[in-house]
This record gives sequence, structure tokens and C-alpha cells, in this order.
Amino acid sequence: MQRTAVIDLGSNTSRLVIYEHDPGRNFRLVDEVREVVRLREGMGASQTLRAAAIDRALHALKMYRVLCDAVGVDELIATATSAVRDATNRDSFIARVQAEAGISLRLLSGEEEGYYGALGAINGVGICDGFVVDMGGGSAQVVEVRNGEPARAHSARLGALHIAETYLGFDAGKPGAVKKLTQQVRELLENEFAWFKAYDGAELAAIGGTVRNLASIAQAEDNYPLDSVDRYILAGSDVTGLGNRLWQMSAEERRKLNGLQVDRADIIHAGALVYSLLLEHSGFDRIIVSQQGLREGLFYEKFLAGQARPVISDLRELSPLSMARNFRQDTRHTQHVAKLCLRMFDDLQELHRLADAFRQLLWAAALIHDIGVSIGYDSHHLYSSYIVLNSLLPGYTPRERVLIGLLARYHRSRGTPKAGEFASLFEPGDEDALTVLAGILRICEYLERGRRQVIPDVRCHFDRELGWVQIEALADGDARMELWDAGRNVGLLAAGLGMEVEIVEGVWAANGVSAIDTDP
Amino acid sequence: MQRTAVIDLGSNTSRLVIYEHDPGRNFRLVDEVREVVRLREGMGASQTLRAAAIDRALHALKMYRVLCDAVGVDELIATATSAVRDATNRDSFIARVQAEAGISLRLLSGEEEGYYGALGAINGVGICDGFVVDMGGGSAQVVEVRNGEPARAHSARLGALHIAETYLGFDAGKPGAVKKLTQQVRELLENEFAWFKAYDGAELAAIGGTVRNLASIAQAEDNYPLDSVDRYILAGSDVTGLGNRLWQMSAEERRKLNGLQVDRADIIHAGALVYSLLLEHSGFDRIIVSQQGLREGLFYEKFLAGQARPVISDLRELSPLSMARNFRQDTRHTQHVAKLCLRMFDDLQELHRLADAFRQLLWAAALIHDIGVSIGYDSHHLYSSYIVLNSLLPGYTPRERVLIGLLARYHRSRGTPKAGEFASLFEPGDEDALTVLAGILRICEYLERGRRQVIPDVRCHFDRELGWVQIEALADGDARMELWDAGRNVGLLAAGLGMEVEIVEGVWAANGVSAIDTDP
Repeated sequence: MQRTAVIDLGSNTSRLVIYEHDPGRNFRLVDEVREVVRLREGMGASQTLRAAAIDRALHALKMYRVLCDAVGVDELIATATSAVRDATNRDSFIARVQAEAGISLRLLSGEEEGYYGALGAINGVGICDGFVVDMGGGSAQVVEVRNGEPARAHSARLGALHIAETYLGFDAGKPGAVKKLTQQVRELLENEFAWFKAYDGAELAAIGGTVRNLASIAQAEDNYPLDSVDRYILAGSDVTGLGNRLWQMSAEERRKLNGLQVDRADIIHAGALVYSLLLEHSGFDRIIVSQQGLREGLFYEKFLAGQARPVISDLRELSPLSMARNFRQDTRHTQHVAKLCLRMFDDLQELHRLADAFRQLLWAAALIHDIGVSIGYDSHHLYSSYIVLNSLLPGYTPRERVLIGLLARYHRSRGTPKAGEFASLFEPGDEDALTVLAGILRICEYLERGRRQVIPDVRCHFDRELGWVQIEALADGDARMELWDAGRNVGLLAAGLGMEVEIVEGVWAANGVSAIDTDP
Repeated sequence: MQRTAVIDLGSNTSRLVIYEHDPGRNFRLVDEVREVVRLREGMGASQTLRAAAIDRALHALKMYRVLCDAVGVDELIATATSAVRDATNRDSFIARVQAEAGISLRLLSGEEEGYYGALGAINGVGICDGFVVDMGGGSAQVVEVRNGEPARAHSARLGALHIAETYLGFDAGKPGAVKKLTQQVRELLENEFAWFKAYDGAELAAIGGTVRNLASIAQAEDNYPLDSVDRYILAGSDVTGLGNRLWQMSAEERRKLNGLQVDRADIIHAGALVYSLLLEHSGFDRIIVSQQGLREGLFYEKFLAGQARPVISDLRELSPLSMARNFRQDTRHTQHVAKLCLRMFDDLQELHRLADAFRQLLWAAALIHDIGVSIGYDSHHLYSSYIVLNSLLPGYTPRERVLIGLLARYHRSRGTPKAGEFASLFEPGDEDALTVLAGILRICEYLERGRRQVIPDVRCHFDRELGWVQIEALADGDARMELWDAGRNVGLLAAGLGMEVEIVEGVWAANGVSAIDTDP
């Protein structure tokens, strides 16, 4: 395992994150420090970093350096963005950071900032074609994404703080100011972002604190059941509504909004207005919110260094695998359960008629169904579900993450999957699908009860008219225990299919099929 | 690590549990199978195990044997209790278990059954003097506990199933039957359990499904905030109330009771009546419910084999240590945080005036505050709290477990500890105590930010009149980062004490104190 540290020195906040990773295979955040440095404070029109701001930043960076040395990191990536980029005295600042903190600060151009932010979003929410918007305090970047890679990027002074300062003020705005802002931003977009237009198949993702807070307000008004904005779909109408509403409220009123971070109350109205203008200009009607952004993008470049491009080739495959690896799963066992599940899903396709997307959810759930054992064996199905519901699972929508969590939840113990508190995320048919899929997962888990792959494969037979399904468990050795334990756990699948389910011992060798591949 | 399997063949249910353990240090359950065998079915007055029952038991035991072989265990302990004990054909049965399942079944006498059950309870809830009652289906055992060890034990046919069969029936009872039962049980208790009487300092604990279900009903009526009956205090008045109420209800009505396992609805009224008679006879007015019983007692004998007696000498010390070890904590780090916490607690005693019991909670919380990192670094304080609230922590009351969980919860992140949903468990002053303790834990965690013991010790100074506290952090090397991070995290302790708190660098070597002991 390697340790990679990323430092991100922003206009307002600095942050150190440390990842532990096995490149290309799995990673996890292991440490994080955040310090407000207010680097832009007092900079004014002369664009010079002030003494107090320089001291604050140097101090934070020195501390980050000490922490990295204390916990041990293999590599340190440190970047600075718009506040330093715009500063007349930036060269002196960068030299002092090197001399006093021992950190080589890489100054990102607006386009590079956009590029890495987009990389974080692409590897986080998995968009293939479209655009990524990153709105900070000073600037905003729009990056085009083509075939899953960041392409053209452009940065403009459309940050929430800058817009509030320049046009609206920090309290309630005035209609005239809003009008002027609207006109000038529209003009800027026409001139500099003519290529930022929705087209068939294109998606719009966004990163940064402004959009996360807009999403969080919308979630609070919507009683959204998850405690994360990642992959949340922010409706264009919500953005426009907030754009129209927030500037008319006083900062005090905004401060009381559920979901809004209090220290954003003085600039969020500006951010909302710019976002609504971005949507109007581009023609998109929704925004996919990404939790991952610049820091993650910088990290992914290292994590994926061995590959042709810094983009995870199959996010929906790597995510559950990475999670299983992080929780030190017995991969021979979980991969084998997954294999049996897929076989059963395919053999029973005519009966359940579920779409392929469900097949992948079943596979993912099979890989991580036991991660809750890390908390405790008793009730580990509940713990697995808790972990999935509280983790990022890049490439999967919130609904899909909930479905995977509920599959883990119902892989053992009594009861039938219910949407419950997550009903608002469910699509019609999801509950029924869950019953079938959890039924399959449960049987396959018990066919692997001894964790020894004694049942290398299964075949399913059925007679729809007579109403029975037979699972022929092809045994390679003494599989009595597995047959017994699976046999007493067929009830859920039977309920899901509305048919009788029986398990019959078959013989593996007689099938002449080659040895299975259970290598991760 | 060793693996010890325990099989418990009861009258109704058989169970296999497998523990992984480092003897005397830590253990965790890693597998469990349960199968209903209904061994007593059809036994009748002739007390002979019937063919079908024998087959069911043999089959389950064979499966357990295969599972043990498949997952690998170092040792297998298998016991049978009253159904086999009472059977005329028990020798044949035991021989067949040996021949066909390869398992040496140890037949426990009523007294031995009581002994091991008591051992589980003593090591679970930590009672020192008093009695442990274990009510099963056929018999009930009362075991005297003296100086933390099981002493005299006696078994009688007071099991819930037997009492229901003999006196009450499985549906609503009749007043005459209740009267007769009451009279005969009173007589039996007078004759056989004259020594079972409350005395000063004596406590009454109970194990087994009957008391767990009574507790669960009482919890449901009481909106108890935890999802566990372990260490729950079942009030005598609740027991008497249930004893008077349940037999008047039909089985159908009882089935609808919140908290009651449905398959107990036909015998729980009998169990409730016997428990109320046990309380009346002994003079106890409350029962401490223990989740751990017979199987755990059998396991503890192995786990503690190297010690003079099979009782954990300091349960409140071993429990958090064992939990920290199970979650592979960096013990140098957590033990050092614990040490700093205790020093600060003691130095500030005059200010906070908290009892010593809180000192131990602080120590325990320091040991396990980071276990949530096993789920993820982000929000790991929430995960630590979730794990503590969902685990057994033998030797601590539910209130104390909640306090430890909340200390872990507030060791980082914003906010002040609140009782919230756990208010019913809190005692006056607990919220204020939590603020002080979490404030101490938070500072000490940051004084160990680099996990390198660079601040071997602290001293606290204060002036109550001027309203300040100074924490002198005795540094052994460059501790700037720790001082900085601790310095920006003094707010919670300041709020808890209502005083200003400052951190000042001191020098460790100049104190001439000998090297600290951070070895676990």
C-alpha cells in the first residue's frame, strides 16, 4: 500500500488529505486536516497577497508538512489555485513555501484546475459526455468531457464570492443589481462559453461548495433520505427557484435555511443566480452533483498512473471491488458467491425478467455482502447495509446504492425487503426485484457456507406451469452442509418468484466444464 | 488467534458458535448456526428420545461438524442439557453422535448447566455477589454467586414449556390453574431453594430466552432507546405485572405483543408467572438481564484457561481493551491518548468535580474512539459511536455504554454532546459531564495528532477566580503541529468548564520524569 498526500490551497480554505492505496485496485482516505486561511483577504484590486494572509497560509502548510512526515507519506502533491494565481507577489510566496515549509507548490492554471476537478467528477459520478462545472469563490471553470475524458476547459471570474462582492452585496440584493448581473453574465457566457451547450447524450456535473449547498437545501426541502449529496440530481427548476428566491432574502434569513452551511449564507444567493444562468445558457435541465473534485482528481492521476489515461475504465466494476478489498474480504469466497448469483440470475431470466442493470447490482451486493463482519458477526447484514449507505460508491446512483445496501441487508435473517424510508428513491418494481435478487443472493451465500467453493456451479431448471424451480447444485465433494443450509433458505426466492424452489445435488465433474476462475 | 467452537444441544434448539480469540486478551464471534431440533417432541412421560427427534439432532450435529472442519477450528466443545439428560435412551444417543457425527457430546448435569450459564452471566454483566437464574424450556437453574464466582447451584423442573404443559396450557389460562401453580411452585421454592434469598449487596441476574423476551416486552412499552436487552434492568413490578397479565390473554393476543418473539407466545405467560414467583420468594425487586449465558460460559472456560479461575478479573478494563484489539487499533496511540486524558481529568478534578466512574468512561472512550476508522475516515467519530452502541461492552451499563459512545461521537467535529434519543438513560448532570469529558478527549486526541507520543505528558494549571485553565503540554521534540491542532480545539472543554482554556508548550526532559509506559 502506498500513501499519497494532496494539499489544496484554495482562496478561502486549505486542506490536506492522505490516501492509502494499492494503485489501480483500491484506496481509502486515512487522514484529513482543514484550515481556513482566507488567502484573498485584503487583496483588493491590486491583487497582492497580504502579510497576514501569507502567514496564515505558511503556518498551515508547515503543519501539513509535519503531519505528513509524522504519519509517513510516499508522495506529496501540493497545489494552489486562483488566489495565488492572481497574485502579483505569487513568486515570492511560492519560494517561501518551498523554503519554510519544504513544499513544492504547483500553481494550477484555470484550465488545469478545471481539468483536475473534472477528473475527480468523472471518476466519481462516471459521466461520459458533457460538461463539469466547478464554482469556487473567485472563479468558475467549465470543462468539456468527451468519451469519459476532460477536454477543453475555460475559467472565468464567476465565483460566488466575487459575484456577491461585485454585484449583489452579502445581504439581500436589489432588483437592479440582479438585472445588471444577469445581463453581464449572459454576455460573458455568450462570448467565452459558446461551446457550453447541451446536446443529445450530454450530462452536466458540478463540483464545489456552492452546488453542494444548493443540493443540500433542495434535499432538506424534499426530505431526501440519504445523508450525502454525491450523485444527487439537482433539478433545473430547483436551481432556478433558488436563484430567484435567495437574493431576496436577508443573510439572516438565509442563515436559517435547512441544509445550508451557515458560513455560506452571505454568498450562496450569488452562486444560485450564476448556476441558474449557466443552465439557461447551456440548456441543461439538471445537474449531477459530485462530491469528488479537485483533490480527488489530483489523487486519481497517481492512483491510475499505470494506465493509459487517468480515468477508471469501468467505475461500476472497480467501486465494489475496491470496497471489498478495503474491508479485506475473502475474495475467493465473495467472488464465488457473485459468480453463482450471476449464473442463477441468467438461468432464471425468463421468470424474473429483470433488466441487466439489476444483474450488476446483484454482482456488487455479492462482493460486499459480508463487509459488516468488520463490525461484528451478529447482525452483520445490518452492518454491511449501514456501511454501504454511509459510503461513496462511485459510478452508482443513490437509488442503486440503496438497492445494493438492502440486498446486503437481506442476504440473511428474516423478513422481505421493503423500501421503507427510501421509498422516494425507488422506481416501480424495485421492491419486487429486491425480493428476487436477495432471494438469489441468500441461496448462493448458503451454497458457499463453508467458504470452500465445494459447489463450483449451479444450473436452474423450472416449469412455469407446474410452478417449480429446481436449483441443481453441482457439487465437487461433500456438499451436504451447503445443500442443507441453502435448502432451508429458499423461502425468499420462492416468495419473489411466486413459485416453489427446491435444491438438488448435482455432480460437478460429470459436467466436464473447466475449472472456474475465482481469482480477483 | 485460536478458534474455539461451542455446540449447545438444547431441548428445542441447537446452536453452533465459533469464536476467534487470543486467550485472555480478546475474542469475537466469527460464525453461528442455529437449527430447531425439538428434541423433546413426543418424549412424553416415558422420557424416551423419539426416532424423528434423534434424526433431526444427528443431522444438525453432522452439519456442525462439517462446518467446523470446513472453516477450521482448534477445539470443539459440545454439550447437551435437559432433554438428553432426562432421556432413558441417552447413552445410545450419545454413542451415535460420536459414531455418526464424530462429536463427543458432554452431558451436563443440572448443576453444571447452571454453573456455565452463571459463568456467562458473570463475565457478561459482572455481578459479584448474588444469584443467576437460567430458565429454559424444561428446567430452571438457580446459581449462587459469591465473590464473582459461581457457587451452589440447583436445578428444578420450572422451565416455561414444562410449566405451560403441566398447569396452564398454551392459550389463555384459568384462575384455578394459576392458583394451583402458584401454590405448588411456592412450595417447591420453600423446599428446594430456601437459600435463594436477597441480602445486602446481592444482585439477581438472569439468562435465557424467557427473561430476554420479558425484557424486550418491557422495553417496547417503555420506548427503550437501545436495540439490546443486555444489562437491561427489568423492574420487579414489570415482572409481576406481566405475570398477572399474560396468562389472561389468548396466545393470539400475546402474539401481537411488541417485543415478543412470535414462537414464544404459547409459553411466555408461564415463564412470566414463574419469574414473578421467584422474585416473591427471593425478595429481589429487579433482574439484571444478561445476553450471555451457557455457550459463553463454556467458551470463557477456554478463553481464560491460563488463569486461576474462569472469571475475568477486571471486566471493565478488559472490555474496552478487547474491543480496541478486535478493531486493530494502534495501541501505542490510543493508550497514550488515554493516559493524557486521565492526567487531565485528575489535574482538573477540583474544577469538574466528576466522580471516578466518569474517569473510567473517559479512559474506555479514549481506547476505542477511533474504531470507526474501520468503516471510513470521514465521519469516523459517528461510526465509532455506531459500533459502540451496537456492541456488547461487558461490565458497563447501557447508560455507560451510551456515554462512551457519545464521547467517541464528540471527540471531533462540531457540536456539543446532547442526550437526544438517549435522554431516558441519562442521569442528572450527565450532559454536562459529557461536555467536559469530550472536551478533554478532543484536546488529548489532537495532542497526539501525529500518533508519535511527542507530548509524553501534560500538566494543568488554573485560576478559578480569573477563569482560566492552562494546559502545559510537555513536549519531547518538535510538537508544533500538535500544539496548533490542540490549540484550535479547546472550545469544547472551555464550554464544559465555563472557563478560558489555553495550551502552552512545556518541556518534557526538564521534568526529569521517567519514560512513560505505553505498552498495552
